[in-house]
Amino acid sequence: MSELSPTLQFAMDLIRRPSVTPDDADCQQMMISRLQPLGFEVEQMRFGEVDNLWLRRGSEGPLFAFAGHTDVVPTGSLEQWHSNPFQPEIHDGMLFGRGAADMKGSLAAFVTACERFVQRHPDHKGSIALLITADEEGPAINGTRKVVEALQQRGETIDWCLVGEPSSTASLGDVVKNGRRGSLGADLWIKGIQGHVAYPHLAQNPIHQALPFLAELAATEWDQGNAFFPPTSFQISNIQSGTGATNVIPGEAHVMFNFRFSTETSAPELQARVEAMLERHGVDHEIEWRLFGEPFLTSRGELVDATVAAIRDVTGTDTELSTSGGTSDGRFIAPTGAQVVELGPCNATIHKVNECVKASDLDLLSQVYQNILQRLLTDTP
Amino acid sequence: MSELSPTLQFAMDLIRRPSVTPDDADCQQMMISRLQPLGFEVEQMRFGEVDNLWLRRGSEGPLFAFAGHTDVVPTGSLEQWHSNPFQPEIHDGMLFGRGAADMKGSLAAFVTACERFVQRHPDHKGSIALLITADEEGPAINGTRKVVEALQQRGETIDWCLVGEPSSTASLGDVVKNGRRGSLGADLWIKGIQGHVAYPHLAQNPIHQALPFLAELAATEWDQGNAFFPPTSFQISNIQSGTGATNVIPGEAHVMFNFRFSTETSAPELQARVEAMLERHGVDHEIEWRLFGEPFLTSRGELVDATVAAIRDVTGTDTELSTSGGTSDGRFIAPTGAQVVELGPCNATIHKVNECVKASDLDLLSQVYQNILQRLLTDTP
Ligand SMILES: [Zn+2]
Ligand SMILES: [Zn+2]
Repeated sequence: MSELSPTLQFAMDLIRRPSVTPDDADCQQMMISRLQPLGFEVEQMRFGEVDNLWLRRGSEGPLFAFAGHTDVVPTGSLEQWHSNPFQPEIHDGMLFGRGAADMKGSLAAFVTACERFVQRHPDHKGSIALLITADEEGPAINGTRKVVEALQQRGETIDWCLVGEPSSTASLGDVVKNGRRGSLGADLWIKGIQGHVAYPHLAQNPIHQALPFLAELAATEWDQGNAFFPPTSFQISNIQSGTGATNVIPGEAHVMFNFRFSTETSAPELQARVEAMLERHGVDHEIEWRLFGEPFLTSRGELVDATVAAIRDVTGTDTELSTSGGTSDGRFIAPTGAQVVELGPCNATIHKVNECVKASDLDLLSQVYQNILQRLLTDTP
Repeated sequence: MSELSPTLQFAMDLIRRPSVTPDDADCQQMMISRLQPLGFEVEQMRFGEVDNLWLRRGSEGPLFAFAGHTDVVPTGSLEQWHSNPFQPEIHDGMLFGRGAADMKGSLAAFVTACERFVQRHPDHKGSIALLITADEEGPAINGTRKVVEALQQRGETIDWCLVGEPSSTASLGDVVKNGRRGSLGADLWIKGIQGHVAYPHLAQNPIHQALPFLAELAATEWDQGNAFFPPTSFQISNIQSGTGATNVIPGEAHVMFNFRFSTETSAPELQARVEAMLERHGVDHEIEWRLFGEPFLTSRGELVDATVAAIRDVTGTDTELSTSGGTSDGRFIAPTGAQVVELGPCNATIHKVNECVKASDLDLLSQVYQNILQRLLTDTP
């Protein structure tokens, strides 16, 4: 193994901290130690049991912020890992470890990009910030959402935000997310009357009652999407009913489902359509809705243009803008009016065993991030 | 409290034994102590962990057998019982205790009916037997089924069998079961591909795949029944799918369902219809069938006639013959060619907390049983 680049070295140091969500495991302290000496002001914001960090260099606008998270998802079955998930290893050019792709590699690239950029441009325009949470993979209640609220309350406004989520698919920078679909979930309880299968006239089977409704729900087309968004999709994630006994008609059925929705519809419209369908089928029920995130879109403009150009500069790749995939903390930042894009390494192995990322991609990523800073915060692109 | 009748006294002694299935808790020994002195030959048959008992008085045919079980279902929530379920109490003419109705009351009535009958008719025709198991409420694998096999292997044939299951509804003897529907169950696993709800094109949702099939299954009319049987009924008792997470498309769905079927169809026909439906809907699946019991029917004849007449003699009630309700151990006895009826006390509280039976009904029941013995095993009805 030849000598490791600063980005790789720092990524590996971060991976060694077992920061399973919502535990930061001192990763944020490691970032502070690197950036405070460069003139970043440090503000640690703890909400509930969650460590959050706001680092800012400069007091003028425009404000560019990197956003990311130090927490990682649990390892899954350790037997299926070829190496210890918290002992990063490089094999055949791939860096293995929990968080290598999501998103300690990006955090390291944030830090080294800032280091090089500030060294070259100590008097850059505007401000650079980092918004780091340890609660992105968990409930995401005491993380980015709360930091954004605190910033808004004191009138501190992010103009451009780059979220380091692993957006790339086949090669670094081939995909940048410039928006996300909305996410709307529901818990539905269908009420019946428990009884014995031999006496069905004394019972009311909530599964039988729900089936025509659920079949229609799953077969419905909600919209056809638009130029920026794929069609709204619907998935039943859980259905549970029954005591386990073969001869008991259950008294209740519990169904959980989720919409990923485009800007062609809205959460209130989806709720109204589902509830009308429940009514029409005469389903005795209770329902609780949860809006996980509104859809958002950052059209072409300074941030998207700088990102696309920086990727072409560093990698030669033509970037595709996409709004597909899951939610990210971008859903909390975009509603403040910030432009938001997501750019990170390839996401093929995130949340899986043997999570890995191409080691050289982290160095390229750091260069792309630096190039974006240069385009937005200097006069000499 | 005035002096208790022998039937009530013995019923209460049996209830004091906490014989939760498959534990006999020495109930069978108590029955042996009463009947062995009267000339019943005792044969204890233990299969696996289950105590079974075969008592027979006489070696000639025809053979009349009482059939029943000493095991009871668990008590359920003790806080909901007004009295200790294993400390029988009589309030307002009702005997309370686990097993009072299902079926220690009937066991006591078997014993006292035999006692009085044998005393009056020591040289009765044919033979009287009792087939007692402690595994009716449980899996019913090492109980009546095995005893019947043992009897068949040695050519011992039951001509008439009276099962003491609580058949009555509003008043003692208002309903006698002269048959039972068949019971056919299935475990169905529907195969999908697990994934993230944000990437449905990479997954295959087994719930969505199953819904049109299940909706059709639940809406199907299987037959219209006939003069003796209500229509075949279908119930989904359990459906389970999902990891609990809102954002994961499950990889598999598990459905359990049950048919209670009439003699208008058959287990092979029902299986073929369901499997054709699975095929037609293209559901990727595995299915395991379990035949819990074939339907059986005992038409009017010596046993039914004697039972109906005895009830009218003792209670004045006109009896309704019925094949409704759950399975009973009659399903194991009927296939040997025996005539089988079920007659016991009112079943409103069986398997519930505060199980109870009208105390005076047990004395009436004992008289009805004695009257049936007299009609079938003497020349002087
Ligand atoms: Zn992430
Ligand atoms: Zn019973």
